[in-house]
Amino acid sequence: MRDVAIVGVGCTEFGELWDRSFRELFVEAGISAIEDANIQGGEIDALYVGNMSGGRFIEQEHLGALIADYAGLASLNIPSTRVEAACASGGLALRQGIVAVASGYHDIVIAGGAEKMTDVDVQITTDALAAAADREWEGVMGATFPGLYAMIARLHMHKYATTQEQLACVAVKNHHNGTMNPKAQFQNEISIETVLNSIMVADPLHIYDCSPITDGASAVVIAPAEIARKYTDTPIYVKASAQASGTLALHDRLDITTLDATVAAASRAYRMAKVTPGDIDFAEVHDCFTIAEICAIEDLGFVRKGEGGPASLSGMTAIGGKIPINPSGGLKACGHPVGATGVKQAVEVALQLRGEAGRRQIDGAEIGLTHNVGGSGGTAVVHIFSREK
Amino acid sequence: MRDVAIVGVGCTEFGELWDRSFRELFVEAGISAIEDANIQGGEIDALYVGNMSGGRFIEQEHLGALIADYAGLASLNIPSTRVEAACASGGLALRQGIVAVASGYHDIVIAGGAEKMTDVDVQITTDALAAAADREWEGVMGATFPGLYAMIARLHMHKYATTQEQLACVAVKNHHNGTMNPKAQFQNEISIETVLNSIMVADPLHIYDCSPITDGASAVVIAPAEIARKYTDTPIYVKASAQASGTLALHDRLDITTLDATVAAASRAYRMAKVTPGDIDFAEVHDCFTIAEICAIEDLGFVRKGEGGPASLSGMTAIGGKIPINPSGGLKACGHPVGATGVKQAVEVALQLRGEAGRRQIDGAEIGLTHNVGGSGGTAVVHIFSREK
Repeated sequence: MRDVAIVGVGCTEFGELWDRSFRELFVEAGISAIEDANIQGGEIDALYVGNMSGGRFIEQEHLGALIADYAGLASLNIPSTRVEAACASGGLALRQGIVAVASGYHDIVIAGGAEKMTDVDVQITTDALAAAADREWEGVMGATFPGLYAMIARLHMHKYATTQEQLACVAVKNHHNGTMNPKAQFQNEISIETVLNSIMVADPLHIYDCSPITDGASAVVIAPAEIARKYTDTPIYVKASAQASGTLALHDRLDITTLDATVAAASRAYRMAKVTPGDIDFAEVHDCFTIAEICAIEDLGFVRKGEGGPASLSGMTAIGGKIPINPSGGLKACGHPVGATGVKQAVEVALQLRGEAGRRQIDGAEIGLTHNVGGSGGTAVVHIFSREK
Repeated sequence: MRDVAIVGVGCTEFGELWDRSFRELFVEAGISAIEDANIQGGEIDALYVGNMSGGRFIEQEHLGALIADYAGLASLNIPSTRVEAACASGGLALRQGIVAVASGYHDIVIAGGAEKMTDVDVQITTDALAAAADREWEGVMGATFPGLYAMIARLHMHKYATTQEQLACVAVKNHHNGTMNPKAQFQNEISIETVLNSIMVADPLHIYDCSPITDGASAVVIAPAEIARKYTDTPIYVKASAQASGTLALHDRLDITTLDATVAAASRAYRMAKVTPGDIDFAEVHDCFTIAEICAIEDLGFVRKGEGGPASLSGMTAIGGKIPINPSGGLKACGHPVGATGVKQAVEVALQLRGEAGRRQIDGAEIGLTHNVGGSGGTAVVHIFSREK
């Protein structure tokens, strides 16, 4: 198994991009990434495309071939593979790309993700997203994702005295980080009052506790570590790539405030990278809802179970805090084009480790972690990246 | 890169299985495969799930986690990944599983495919399948897959004097093979007249030129070659796994009677396995329409371009002929649950190479090939398997 590095990154702006199509977005991100890596299209050996629901959002499947074609790579007949795991589709595309390079099957791989969510009515979007949950047991009962995460939040509040203010401060921090990210969907400051006074979506989650519906794409160029410096002076080394499954439906879990898949993926990743949570300088985690970030920092081992709320309120997870979380603005402020998110997290970590994150730069960042979740925890993917080989 | 072998295979019956759900079908195939390999669930390191359009057919995405969960593997938190490339989804799941074991990331991997196509109205099915073509350029013009392949057939007839009888004899042979496959959707003999007198779907393709709409699932157990004999006395070695993309839309091709992706994937596979088309004893090819099998045996190099029609009529591709094609009955008679087909082809090749194919056994089969196509050739996957390491 070969060591692997990221040698180029690209990302579109995130937002309601009504004038651009799915294929345009993906190819824009891909071109940014290959320009960043100083490679030509002809050097690409394979493509991995993360996407959740092209079938519902744009009535298009077969997205790997679509992207190879629109990128002008069809004449090279390169393999192009779509992978899907709901909102973890991007993280899985990244992981498959890493495995493909590690295996020796391919040398230069583009792993990207994209989602075009705003071409359909929002009710279709909500229903399509609900297909990440267990349709036969949750969907048919009318469960939507805000509803499922609201149940997680309620139990977290009951067990650990987590407050609505603690939830809200996650959104406040991520919006603040978003003001320093020119690609973010939301670049405006909010206050705890903004969150608490906003409309209720699924009690106790207000609309500002929820990540938005977003169009966008992101991509990375993956290469064997031993040749990474041929492409860039600042390769970012993949120290761990770990994935785990949990039950699809919440009712099958012993404790819905813990995502077993996150715990398992993180444990494997720390073992693979030979690090502990204390070695991680910062992380991009899956804050599809504010409660999700609180659970994530617990399940990833940054704080003890139940302490995610107070830790968030204390400023520990802000840029400049002990463990900055979601410097990009996270899903909440940067936006959440579901197939793109897992790759965007890696783009952000690479930019931070290269020292190219602009106003949101974390000083002295050496090791970063990404955490991408599908559904309410049916899938979790954790990657650990380092400046050092 | 490690050598890889198939150590277990499983397949459900194929047909209109209204009393069984997607998850039941996949798990049935998976259990058959792990029983065949004499392994326990706890030995499985990862799952790959091929599926084209769960979002449209059963309103369910996140199919990797769904299957891990329903198979009772959620408590082990094993990684489970869905891959999609339209009708090549199964072939890609197989390939990702092979790459995962070859890389050393995983040891024992289940790669399977499933599709549940009969739970929705046939118009929804047809529209969902059309999402394998280029929606913005073909779908919006009303192009369906019978229509696209009818254009390929028309040009093949024009350029090479291919006849409707030659097309029909592909269906006749595959139905005959299907009579010897207890899992096949159609197990009845037909004649050339049956085909020519059947209703026209898209001129010149009659309904008997078309593969059916099918429910079904299939799975294989993949292991490193060096430990394969721990699980079975008859491991089937993977000599090549190759994938290629072509343009999604037909209008972008120089010659629509050739699937460039098939030519490229086959060329890579032959090089990887160090064999020529003449070394292949038999093949399972992607006969979604009768013309597709004729193009496939040309593009795979079994006959010269334009000679696929006469070769088929001559009996060369029948069991007992020079190069038996689709002993399982192919997509035409065995059925075509789109996500399952690519894996079912590997199941059939393994059974043949193990000498366990019953009445349809090909004598002395040593090397077999599978050929799985997405859409009208946007994706092609070619695998070569051997009894010998």
